[in-house]
Amino acid sequence: VENNKVNPWEVKGKVDYEKLIKEFGVQKLDYEKVGSLFDESHVSLRRGFFYAHRDFDKWIEALKSNKPLAIVSGRGPSRQMHIGHIVVFHFAKWLQEKTGAFMYIPFSDDEKYLTKASDFKTIREYTINNLINILALDFDPKKTRIFIDTQEPIIYSLSILFSKHFNLNTIRSVFGADFKNIGWIFYPAVQVAHILLPQVLNGQTETLVPVAIDQDPYLRIARDIAPKYGFLKPRTILSKFFPSLEDPYGKMSSSGEKLISLDDDFNMIKKKMRKYAFSGGRPTIEEHRKLGGIPEIDVAFLYLYYFFEEDDEKIKEIEEKYRRGELLTKEIKDYASEKIWEFLKEFQERKEVIKENWEEYYYKYTLKEKEKEKILDFIYSN
Amino acid sequence: VENNKVNPWEVKGKVDYEKLIKEFGVQKLDYEKVGSLFDESHVSLRRGFFYAHRDFDKWIEALKSNKPLAIVSGRGPSRQMHIGHIVVFHFAKWLQEKTGAFMYIPFSDDEKYLTKASDFKTIREYTINNLINILALDFDPKKTRIFIDTQEPIIYSLSILFSKHFNLNTIRSVFGADFKNIGWIFYPAVQVAHILLPQVLNGQTETLVPVAIDQDPYLRIARDIAPKYGFLKPRTILSKFFPSLEDPYGKMSSSGEKLISLDDDFNMIKKKMRKYAFSGGRPTIEEHRKLGGIPEIDVAFLYLYYFFEEDDEKIKEIEEKYRRGELLTKEIKDYASEKIWEFLKEFQERKEVIKENWEEYYYKYTLKEKEKEKILDFIYSN
Repeated sequence: VENNKVNPWEVKGKVDYEKLIKEFGVQKLDYEKVGSLFDESHVSLRRGFFYAHRDFDKWIEALKSNKPLAIVSGRGPSRQMHIGHIVVFHFAKWLQEKTGAFMYIPFSDDEKYLTKASDFKTIREYTINNLINILALDFDPKKTRIFIDTQEPIIYSLSILFSKHFNLNTIRSVFGADFKNIGWIFYPAVQVAHILLPQVLNGQTETLVPVAIDQDPYLRIARDIAPKYGFLKPRTILSKFFPSLEDPYGKMSSSGEKLISLDDDFNMIKKKMRKYAFSGGRPTIEEHRKLGGIPEIDVAFLYLYYFFEEDDEKIKEIEEKYRRGELLTKEIKDYASEKIWEFLKEFQERKEVIKENWEEYYYKYTLKEKEKEKILDFIYSN
Repeated sequence: VENNKVNPWEVKGKVDYEKLIKEFGVQKLDYEKVGSLFDESHVSLRRGFFYAHRDFDKWIEALKSNKPLAIVSGRGPSRQMHIGHIVVFHFAKWLQEKTGAFMYIPFSDDEKYLTKASDFKTIREYTINNLINILALDFDPKKTRIFIDTQEPIIYSLSILFSKHFNLNTIRSVFGADFKNIGWIFYPAVQVAHILLPQVLNGQTETLVPVAIDQDPYLRIARDIAPKYGFLKPRTILSKFFPSLEDPYGKMSSSGEKLISLDDDFNMIKKKMRKYAFSGGRPTIEEHRKLGGIPEIDVAFLYLYYFFEEDDEKIKEIEEKYRRGELLTKEIKDYASEKIWEFLKEFQERKEVIKENWEEYYYKYTLKEKEKEKILDFIYSN
């Protein structure tokens, strides 16, 4: 029985992260080998939220020898964004600050239109909504490009170039998805264009793609064809899914109210955490005090552990106290709510500033005319 | 045994035009019904080179009631152009002059890259070469748009919109082709975007697509989805293939030297006609004088008949004299060479003028910023 499935468009059932490493043929991330390279590491990196990779070590080597670096990580804007969506961007921004890498953030509104039961009108609303969120993260516009596929369609010309290398059988076997229309079948070439864009613009560039593990198939096909253009194979660092409120092994949903939205206020967060967050605690306070909680399956704890509690001492203390039954589920949930709110409050404030003039902000990040010309020149010389 | 095959990427074997009408489900063109509507008709129309259609009569009706009209006819630039390629554009220009219709000429460099064993570097050379030919036809820039798919990629955003309506099975059964890569699979949506573009820009518009019969599958799928957007079904008028030099039932090849290129001079034309043109004459002069020639299978006669001899009296005279054996094969070939040269000489002169500053000429025909914005607005409201 096929009880789980992970591809870019479907994450079904309980996710077995170890099994995915084998299935996808990626490497397990050894934190000691990579994390120690930075003076202080990112919380989600050292706590194993990023847990697998392809040649991340090569990217690190390139960093040490001052080679040109790039980071690509995009957003598929089909829904509102929740706290799980922000982690990879937060990490990417941290990486950019640490390394000086050039960052590319493509918005695949096309993918969402093609793969979801939504029209473009709806997708467009979410695109702008999601874009404002990304703008609020305050990437350095001198070193960051943000573009929306349908709005900066030069990316499609590049996709046409790459698409010739992929036949239907390859795409079917790599993605294992039921492609419902011809645009969807073509779309993997668009994502390859996103991933190879830094090298199209600047020649050989060590490109790192930090994404959730379900996106790995795109990396596989991009790596396959990179050498045909004299490019380095793009590297990736792969995260787990940010846990669903109701299931520590599931992926946080993007619809309904069982998620912590980036727009939620403190009361809403607290309410949702109390109501929905799967608990690693015991049925009664007495039992909990006696047997202790199980942090590994406690969603509130996992939120703190993977991202919201940066302090290593503090998280260790919480974990131990919870395990010993000294901390109750409700207490850990409320603490997580506070930490989430601490992050979101600041984020929402920046967002308020940007909201009114988002087009002005966005403009600073868009592809420049010269870059678009470079893309065309590249196409016509291949 | 499958001894013939006609789809946009392959014309194999002896073409049976009557059979194609049935296979494609198109209507036979009744010249009396449509040609008489113009004060003077186009030679290729009244002589049956355009021989089939889908709702051409509706386009004519719209013309009579002064409704907005458009014509779409593109060029796939994989090779040099030959005399066969010019006929449809000549007809389209005549139609535009008679009707005031707005004309769109997309260059599907993408299609050629995806479906041929050529790189973009090669395709680009032919694109510019072919573009200069089209510019030399001197369409009215106020009423004509010419665009190259990869260079005006907004057309791809529109293609993404339409591509959601087509699944692989539909495309496979309509085209009956072996799609060798995922770009090729997607490409039919691009051509649908070409065909529906007039209505995307201007709302309901009677759109006529004059093309060779092998392009009809694109019309079929464009007509299928047009009503979903409140559009009129595009109409088409379908031509036979311009005959191959060596085979009156074949399609003129685009490579090798067995074709009359738009760049050939008089001597070259004469030489090729004498050497390669399939003759309807008899093996010896004696037999020919006695039995007469067969104009229906004589390629030189067909060139004159379908396009190069506009004078109805004259062509009738040639046909009769040839049939009676009064005209020899060599004479008819030489006369055809003269007529072809008459046309090409003028064409090549205009081309010389344009060649130097082709980009300046081209610029007048490109999509305007406002039009590109309109396309995006259309996408985002659907």
